[in-house]
Amino acid sequence: MASTPAANSEEFSPSRACRLRDVPRWDFESDVVVVGFGTAGASAAIEALAAGARTTLFEAASGPGGTSAMAGGDIYLGGGGGTPVQRANGFHDETEDFFRYMLMAGGPDADEQRTRLYADGALAHFDWLREQGVPYSDRYLPGKVMAPGTGDCLIWSGSEIAWPYNQKAKPCPRGHLPEVVGEMGGRLLAETLARRAEEAGLETHYDARALALVAGEDGRVGGAVLRIDGQVRYARAANGVILCAGGFVLNREMLQRHVPQLSRLAPDALSGGYDDGSGIRMGQSVGGAAIHMDEVFVTLPFYPPASHVKGILVNQAGLRFTNEDAYPGRVAVHCLRQAGDRIFLLVDDEIFEPPTELSRIEIAAVGQTWGEIEGELGLPPETLESTVRIHNRHASRGEDPLFHKTAEWLKPLDRPPFAALACHLGEAFYPYFTLGGLSTLPTGQVLTADRETVPGLYAAGRTCCGLPRSAEGYSSGMSLGDCTFFGRLAGRTAARTPLA
Amino acid sequence: MASTPAANSEEFSPSRACRLRDVPRWDFESDVVVVGFGTAGASAAIEALAAGARTTLFEAASGPGGTSAMAGGDIYLGGGGGTPVQRANGFHDETEDFFRYMLMAGGPDADEQRTRLYADGALAHFDWLREQGVPYSDRYLPGKVMAPGTGDCLIWSGSEIAWPYNQKAKPCPRGHLPEVVGEMGGRLLAETLARRAEEAGLETHYDARALALVAGEDGRVGGAVLRIDGQVRYARAANGVILCAGGFVLNREMLQRHVPQLSRLAPDALSGGYDDGSGIRMGQSVGGAAIHMDEVFVTLPFYPPASHVKGILVNQAGLRFTNEDAYPGRVAVHCLRQAGDRIFLLVDDEIFEPPTELSRIEIAAVGQTWGEIEGELGLPPETLESTVRIHNRHASRGEDPLFHKTAEWLKPLDRPPFAALACHLGEAFYPYFTLGGLSTLPTGQVLTADRETVPGLYAAGRTCCGLPRSAEGYSSGMSLGDCTFFGRLAGRTAARTPLA
Repeated sequence: MASTPAANSEEFSPSRACRLRDVPRWDFESDVVVVGFGTAGASAAIEALAAGARTTLFEAASGPGGTSAMAGGDIYLGGGGGTPVQRANGFHDETEDFFRYMLMAGGPDADEQRTRLYADGALAHFDWLREQGVPYSDRYLPGKVMAPGTGDCLIWSGSEIAWPYNQKAKPCPRGHLPEVVGEMGGRLLAETLARRAEEAGLETHYDARALALVAGEDGRVGGAVLRIDGQVRYARAANGVILCAGGFVLNREMLQRHVPQLSRLAPDALSGGYDDGSGIRMGQSVGGAAIHMDEVFVTLPFYPPASHVKGILVNQAGLRFTNEDAYPGRVAVHCLRQAGDRIFLLVDDEIFEPPTELSRIEIAAVGQTWGEIEGELGLPPETLESTVRIHNRHASRGEDPLFHKTAEWLKPLDRPPFAALACHLGEAFYPYFTLGGLSTLPTGQVLTADRETVPGLYAAGRTCCGLPRSAEGYSSGMSLGDCTFFGRLAGRTAARTPLA
Repeated sequence: MASTPAANSEEFSPSRACRLRDVPRWDFESDVVVVGFGTAGASAAIEALAAGARTTLFEAASGPGGTSAMAGGDIYLGGGGGTPVQRANGFHDETEDFFRYMLMAGGPDADEQRTRLYADGALAHFDWLREQGVPYSDRYLPGKVMAPGTGDCLIWSGSEIAWPYNQKAKPCPRGHLPEVVGEMGGRLLAETLARRAEEAGLETHYDARALALVAGEDGRVGGAVLRIDGQVRYARAANGVILCAGGFVLNREMLQRHVPQLSRLAPDALSGGYDDGSGIRMGQSVGGAAIHMDEVFVTLPFYPPASHVKGILVNQAGLRFTNEDAYPGRVAVHCLRQAGDRIFLLVDDEIFEPPTELSRIEIAAVGQTWGEIEGELGLPPETLESTVRIHNRHASRGEDPLFHKTAEWLKPLDRPPFAALACHLGEAFYPYFTLGGLSTLPTGQVLTADRETVPGLYAAGRTCCGLPRSAEGYSSGMSLGDCTFFGRLAGRTAARTPLA
């Protein structure tokens, strides 16, 4: 395979499509080109191959997995009466409850069509995941957990039990984790799907960086320009290109532009190493619209220990601001809405346990009375005392009329000694990844601002703005659910939609 | 002038540039084409003409003014020791204080280069406005006012005195209103500039709708497609096109896409009638990037009466959440960050006056004690009482350690009867307009996502994302300041930058 001496990889930019007439030759020829080998790319490839399309995948890293492999690995599934694991553990999950929860979680611009397809198809999707070889136990792990690494399958992974979600949809646990011990669920999921894709005949190129899309004068996307081993290569895609290249959490300029408020946090980007926004920018280079670029998943792992959920969070005015029993991503969004960066978790002796090292939550003050702690923290006189007194008064009756925390997590903070734990923005661990991306149909077809499709271009995973598009509503398992479910749909659609 | 029977105006979309080779003829020929005749367009035209460029302006409405004409008309100016009006009233305003305030107001992604140019050039800009014939008195009107319509010039139009701005920049009043009685300042400003542009030789076409840009295969913008009197017309711009077509506050689809949280408010869009987003979409059609599309100026005119600023705002948990003496736009942003839609302004007999009809603020409860009001509003027991007790305790010493309201606006709410006024989202008057738009250099040159310029394309006013790009930091007079100052710069740059 000859390289083109004239073509320097610096000449290319993801923001500028290469014109079809400037392509000197095709180094690779297939029906479908997939960019990125996380779970979205792997799922797209499996389905494209199953539909008979010659499929080639280019991955910037030296192996599969992408950012999916960094995750706990749970997938948010339910409806239809329940998955086999939900049923085996006595849970009945109506599709409408599942659908309503997902729609609420999608926020004020939730994609109803996508949510409906997902809610209706989730059970079959679970079957498919198992058919690909992803192992799932039948075991349910109750309580407030995050990526427990126990090999159990079913967990409460969102805000299902918490206000306001519990007002609109019957709660059910829906996080489904692969069976693996240790925090390896995402890696197992991603590698299982990748292996399956390769067994099905996928042509895979690692260390292959996508430099730009190739587009005809009519705007159709017909391939991609790659850099492989220092050489510029051209890959023809007779049907189209599926961008599964992740989000933009590692692109500092894009973050500053779209989510400047993240500068309040420590730089705890969640990424497999390649979320540089190039997928989104390639889509924009041919007219694709990027939407909800200001939405970034962020969380505050203030538990485990689960007992800390019974504590209350206050801002630097000493006032509560949210129900602490919601998914910690929702809690973190509310922390970011406070005027100052100082956030405290108040606990008493009955519920205190040392925070995990991971969380970077330090003990800010300890005292025999809340007034003592108020003074030690320099909070305005009477504020913390009043906050706890009001909380205790209502909590002792199992009520939280201020923020609607559920009774299970309510207890008066009345057992000295008391402590305030520092969950400050910029200090505690608030990891984040981006939710905004290319506007697409559920089929993955990329849309312009006018919602016209860009022929030959598809996107899935965090390169597109999918099911999870509201940081406040996010639940663990929604992003991988979206990556795999709609990655598959993009693969099928591209395989069946020749450009010619 | 012959129309093209074949060209139907429905064939065109602002999201799709017309190819140069598809232009059948030029109906208009000039160096600079300006789209939109608000203050940005008028300022651009004046300067383009002054630099010797043949300039043609197309306006969708039947007369000049655009959304600028709906405004109070103040322009945010200062620095250099002070404008003549600031000095005449004993105010000294250092450029660095002005600059730091503007930079803070621009939020976490403020445009430092633009802010520097503006801070350094504001005094000369004021001279220029007067040279164009905009009348200004020398009078200062102290206190908390909004578009008072008294003919006075200088007002406190932002959050200068309020925390946290007062920590970083020495406060100074900087709103400069044209001399006119009644709320006609924006109209007077816009019409004065429009008249001046026409006197200088501007060719103006009203009822002329811009349908699309014209772009060559090399991406250069060389003109625009218009619809005039039902016919499709083609306007050549030898140097380029300046988009001054307003924001997107009337485009429901774009609002839902970019600012879905606005659905919590009543539909009180601030617009002259043509902020349909077409200017931004035209820019995007040739590769321009739109930024900060999620930022929307929103305000809550909870005063006049100014005495109400001495009241305190609480959310539906009965808790305070912000310093009420900041610019009401900042206050409104904090209202929108609360979990529920119910917001109350608490006042006592000493400060209560009936709210203006405009504000749609109703009396929600009246009582002899705060406990009585708490019960009447159905707020959680002890919350409102505690909130007021803590406030009164500190306010009686002229302090607000919770939210740092300044002493001037602090008073204990201790004179019964007491009242709670309903400032609820979705009910009270929260008018809004969009701040996001095309990414530009200070010269108005439109930028791609890679910050490369799009040759021949400029934007000013709310079609671009300018100085005001943070709802939380907005001060009255920043948008018109940006429109006029950077409209001028775009006009000068386009006039001096031939494409050929």
